[in-house]
Amino acid sequence: MSKGRLEAFSDGVIAILITIMVLELKVPHGADAEALRPLLPVFLSYVLSFVYLGIYWNNHHHMFQLADRINGRILWANLHLLFWLSLVPFVTGWMGENHFAPLPTAVYGAVLLLAGVAYLILQNAIIAQQGQGSRLAAAVGRDVKGKLSAALYAVAIPSAFFHRWIAGAIYVFVALMWLVPDRRIESKLNR
Amino acid sequence: MSKGRLEAFSDGVIAILITIMVLELKVPHGADAEALRPLLPVFLSYVLSFVYLGIYWNNHHHMFQLADRINGRILWANLHLLFWLSLVPFVTGWMGENHFAPLPTAVYGAVLLLAGVAYLILQNAIIAQQGQGSRLAAAVGRDVKGKLSAALYAVAIPSAFFHRWIAGAIYVFVALMWLVPDRRIESKLNR
Amino acid sequence: MSKGRLEAFSDGVIAILITIMVLELKVPHGADAEALRPLLPVFLSYVLSFVYLGIYWNNHHHMFQLADRINGRILWANLHLLFWLSLVPFVTGWMGENHFAPLPTAVYGAVLLLAGVAYLILQNAIIAQQGQGSRLAAAVGRDVKGKLSAALYAVAIPSAFFHRWIAGAIYVFVALMWLVPDRRIESKLNR
Amino acid sequence: MSKGRLEAFSDGVIAILITIMVLELKVPHGADAEALRPLLPVFLSYVLSFVYLGIYWNNHHHMFQLADRINGRILWANLHLLFWLSLVPFVTGWMGENHFAPLPTAVYGAVLLLAGVAYLILQNAIIAQQGQGSRLAAAVGRDVKGKLSAALYAVAIPSAFFHRWIAGAIYVFVALMWLVPDRRIESKLNR
Repeated sequence: MSKGRLEAFSDGVIAILITIMVLELKVPHGADAEALRPLLPVFLSYVLSFVYLGIYWNNHHHMFQLADRINGRILWANLHLLFWLSLVPFVTGWMGENHFAPLPTAVYGAVLLLAGVAYLILQNAIIAQQGQGSRLAAAVGRDVKGKLSAALYAVAIPSAFFHRWIAGAIYVFVALMWLVPDRRIESKLNR
Repeated sequence: MSKGRLEAFSDGVIAILITIMVLELKVPHGADAEALRPLLPVFLSYVLSFVYLGIYWNNHHHMFQLADRINGRILWANLHLLFWLSLVPFVTGWMGENHFAPLPTAVYGAVLLLAGVAYLILQNAIIAQQGQGSRLAAAVGRDVKGKLSAALYAVAIPSAFFHRWIAGAIYVFVALMWLVPDRRIESKLNR
Repeated sequence: MSKGRLEAFSDGVIAILITIMVLELKVPHGADAEALRPLLPVFLSYVLSFVYLGIYWNNHHHMFQLADRINGRILWANLHLLFWLSLVPFVTGWMGENHFAPLPTAVYGAVLLLAGVAYLILQNAIIAQQGQGSRLAAAVGRDVKGKLSAALYAVAIPSAFFHRWIAGAIYVFVALMWLVPDRRIESKLNR
Repeated sequence: MSKGRLEAFSDGVIAILITIMVLELKVPHGADAEALRPLLPVFLSYVLSFVYLGIYWNNHHHMFQLADRINGRILWANLHLLFWLSLVPFVTGWMGENHFAPLPTAVYGAVLLLAGVAYLILQNAIIAQQGQGSRLAAAVGRDVKGKLSAALYAVAIPSAFFHRWIAGAIYVFVALMWLVPDRRIESKLNR
């Protein structure tokens, strides 16, 4: 099985998800600045989720460049990842409309955590298919960054019930961790 | 006519369908667990339909790898399949919002049955185009799995009016039948 | 400029249009047959528009197989066609929700007519780019079918104000004219 | 990293944006001409935004034909551009539904300005990756047209609060500037 169509399908789903999120930014009826104010938290959560989906698309892209062939396990591991990503627009809207209330903020983190775990499962499925001398396994190394992200989400979820801004800060930090360090930190993190 | 553009178009439609279904998961106004509870049946029917569309995408992908050329009959048989699949978000939302009430649950099964029949028509159109010695015909064999699925849907539809959970269990069973058996059962089912 | 990306973009837009039309089929609140009845005209107009968009995708696909290079005029003629097609979901929903009332039925025909004219403009742009000995010009011939469709829409639009079913019958007839005749009639119609 | 998947992803996002904008054209309940009248400003702003997204798709297409390789900076500059474009449906709907009121008209211009700046950042990222003798730098020249557009948006935004039609006229003029001049003006503008 060729990987081209799996990549194209995943790109399609992520492109749609990143775009339909904006439908949660409901057009307000008023035409003044007051009308925009309640949209601010929705907008902020939209920006955060846009960055997360961009990171997933980017990493997915890199990972499949190192993949060789697709088997049934990889295919379903990929659909499993897309499933959790497909819930991102819902939890983004719920967190934004409720001004980062504890439960929606925790559920947002839970969906990020499950998407992160699904990503690791997909990564393992590709490594298992490649067997010994896997190019992906060599590139990923100990995957400190992937495991650290999962650990940080696991801290953020309960913290949303104490101080929601701790959870929010962790989500922003994890996103920045994937965005910013291109050369120096990356080499240290074995990725 | 090349099959690349037909595959890309079908991928696009299925990617959009699998994604817009999540729009039926309307963002609740409350921020507590109570607000999520009425969404549970909608979520469950979303999971089921996500798996079904994933199975269709997967099977479509495999089938067209064995297709050679596209003619008008194959093209319209493919659009006919996409038509029934395009109704999946509607029946998913209707069944979920009505907590698996009899009629929506039966209509859900009817759309699955019609999509299954459309798939068989498409399969036959490709086999007819290939003529004798068709690679697809050899791969499909007697297609026990495809015919068994259609028969099970035909049982599920009336059973929804007696015990809706029988219908639900059949839908889950058919999905698992396509998901789980990768090696042993498949060889027995001639597929 | 390569034609691959123009084809992929057009496929994407048509795939999305054919899919978001189904969002006009709003999930009813009731769970009985009564709840489905008001959706019948919306469903019928959805089927009609699905077939029309399928025909456009099919014809677009064939036409660009005969195209060589893309210039600015072809690119914008293509976007002009996509613009009118993008209004199909709107007029489909308006006609369906108003049970084929005169004005929406006439406006539906007007959008079909303008899409048809845009298609002819696009066809001419490709023929002009190819110059003498154009492969597309040879394939299209006198394009009786394209011109007849435009003429029939022009008859259907005013007739919607007298007997809306005349307009409806013409829309169905034009769709069938493009769907059904694959060999015999087509050769007579020079296409 | 190959540029094919970045182009396909960008095409997907722009195709979806250009299409979901039409969802702001809400199907009216009435079936007479009166019911259409309040949709006129929404329709006009839809036409304007359709043309703008078409111009961006067109220019994006040309620019990446001159790109060689994709690095992390180009990838994120591209996502940054898609982010601002993703807000176009929102500001289009807001401007249209409020009949070109001052604030929405100014915000529409601000999103166009930010998308234009993002486009220039992306252009610079590609030129930086190509280094000396960049093919894109040679093609773009001094980029009078890009800088003039940004300047015109900067004029339009405050003018929306004095005479909104000045802002509207500037938006139309910039669009026409990119649409119309194919040969003569373009060579003078070094693009």
